[in-house]
Amino acid sequence: MSLLDSVPINDRGLLLGDGLFETLLVERGAVIDLEPHLDRMAAGCETLGFPALDRVAAARAVADAAGSLAAERAALRLTLTAGSGGRGLDRPASVTPRLFATAAALGAAPEPARLVLSQVRRNEGSPASRWKTLAYLDNVLARREALAAGGDEALMLNSRGELACAAAANLFWISGGRLFTPALECGVLAGVMRARVLARAAHSGLEVAQVRAGPDALATAEGAFLTNSLTGVRPVATLDGRSLPIPALIARLAEA
Amino acid sequence: MSLLDSVPINDRGLLLGDGLFETLLVERGAVIDLEPHLDRMAAGCETLGFPALDRVAAARAVADAAGSLAAERAALRLTLTAGSGGRGLDRPASVTPRLFATAAALGAAPEPARLVLSQVRRNEGSPASRWKTLAYLDNVLARREALAAGGDEALMLNSRGELACAAAANLFWISGGRLFTPALECGVLAGVMRARVLARAAHSGLEVAQVRAGPDALATAEGAFLTNSLTGVRPVATLDGRSLPIPALIARLAEA
Repeated sequence: MSLLDSVPINDRGLLLGDGLFETLLVERGAVIDLEPHLDRMAAGCETLGFPALDRVAAARAVADAAGSLAAERAALRLTLTAGSGGRGLDRPASVTPRLFATAAALGAAPEPARLVLSQVRRNEGSPASRWKTLAYLDNVLARREALAAGGDEALMLNSRGELACAAAANLFWISGGRLFTPALECGVLAGVMRARVLARAAHSGLEVAQVRAGPDALATAEGAFLTNSLTGVRPVATLDGRSLPIPALIARLAEA
Repeated sequence: MSLLDSVPINDRGLLLGDGLFETLLVERGAVIDLEPHLDRMAAGCETLGFPALDRVAAARAVADAAGSLAAERAALRLTLTAGSGGRGLDRPASVTPRLFATAAALGAAPEPARLVLSQVRRNEGSPASRWKTLAYLDNVLARREALAAGGDEALMLNSRGELACAAAANLFWISGGRLFTPALECGVLAGVMRARVLARAAHSGLEVAQVRAGPDALATAEGAFLTNSLTGVRPVATLDGRSLPIPALIARLAEA
């Protein structure tokens, strides 16, 4: 199915954002963390009311896409839509999801992030805020705002004004020597790399507090970083133009 | 362009919900309210940072789709995506939007609505909440919730808990003989039929208050109705199973 190169214009992913995706890192042909990504997509299928994920087909699409590209590092995207449907919001009685995967070469790891606080709020009042859905326009608009303001990534608050995430990454910060990250209930994606950082910190005896916190928490932070599957741990260099320190702990996490 | 029957899998509408749509009524081949629908899509292009809408191409796609179907009444959908793009959230330096239109026959006007209060909140903190974007998953999920609860349409509150809209319609109610509707700042689509009802009411010397109000306003209402371009004015029969009266005023508006 990774050979699919187009979808019909009655696809519900295209028409309504009715679908899910995953972004995976491929290093020298090896797909990193396939299982947790498929786990998340399978759980997203449940939330959205899709048929159970066909993990065999999904893994095959991923393998085909990973094999289609000879690159040191690649970004692989797996996309699942609700398939073809009739007019309007309601899915057909029987949903046949559509699955495809593509890969693109990745350049060097990006520089530390220049965050800009976005006006676009994260909607913690939607189940979709916990999943990577095809309805990702808010993140597109937040990123555009950050680029226009001279940054390279957006910091998004939720509708209660609490810290949530970046447009394409989870957020962590350090305060009083402790690690913090927004709780999932803040409208946050359960990131695969977020889970790895939590597990790694626990393994090192470091506690990470999952909290509801306002943007002031970043104003007094000793440093902050972003996580996603492609860039791992990425330090934050600036927030709205103000420099943040990058303590040794973040540099260590980024290397690991 | 209405002859397009598929889009490539690098289309940003498909991958990210990066695009807009309009739904228009066609009666015996005549497209109703084309200009206000194109006006809204053009304004949405500005909000999303798209190139200016090609109104000539859009009108041609609409006319072609309307002419493709011999039906007494049809629903016509015009879809505009940000076109093909590379990997990730950021649009290419030069965006070439992709436009297509389709039509489907419509049955008889639906019965009065059986509304169910949804758990999915409308995100008034996103500019997308004011436009018909391809990131419509929240509306899909709200509608699913309503159907599962035995209703046929969802009532959505915004993140502040204020009345916003239905999954695919604007909301009005009557209280003390006056008409009310949620203000646009509640995260509400500036519906074409909403604007027509506002204009018609003003013409009849009826004031419509555009307000921020909680769901209690409906508990004491003398009646409520939904509006959209396909069903016009549709009375609300029940809210969470409780019957609402349908006063003569709503019946008159529905006929007009």
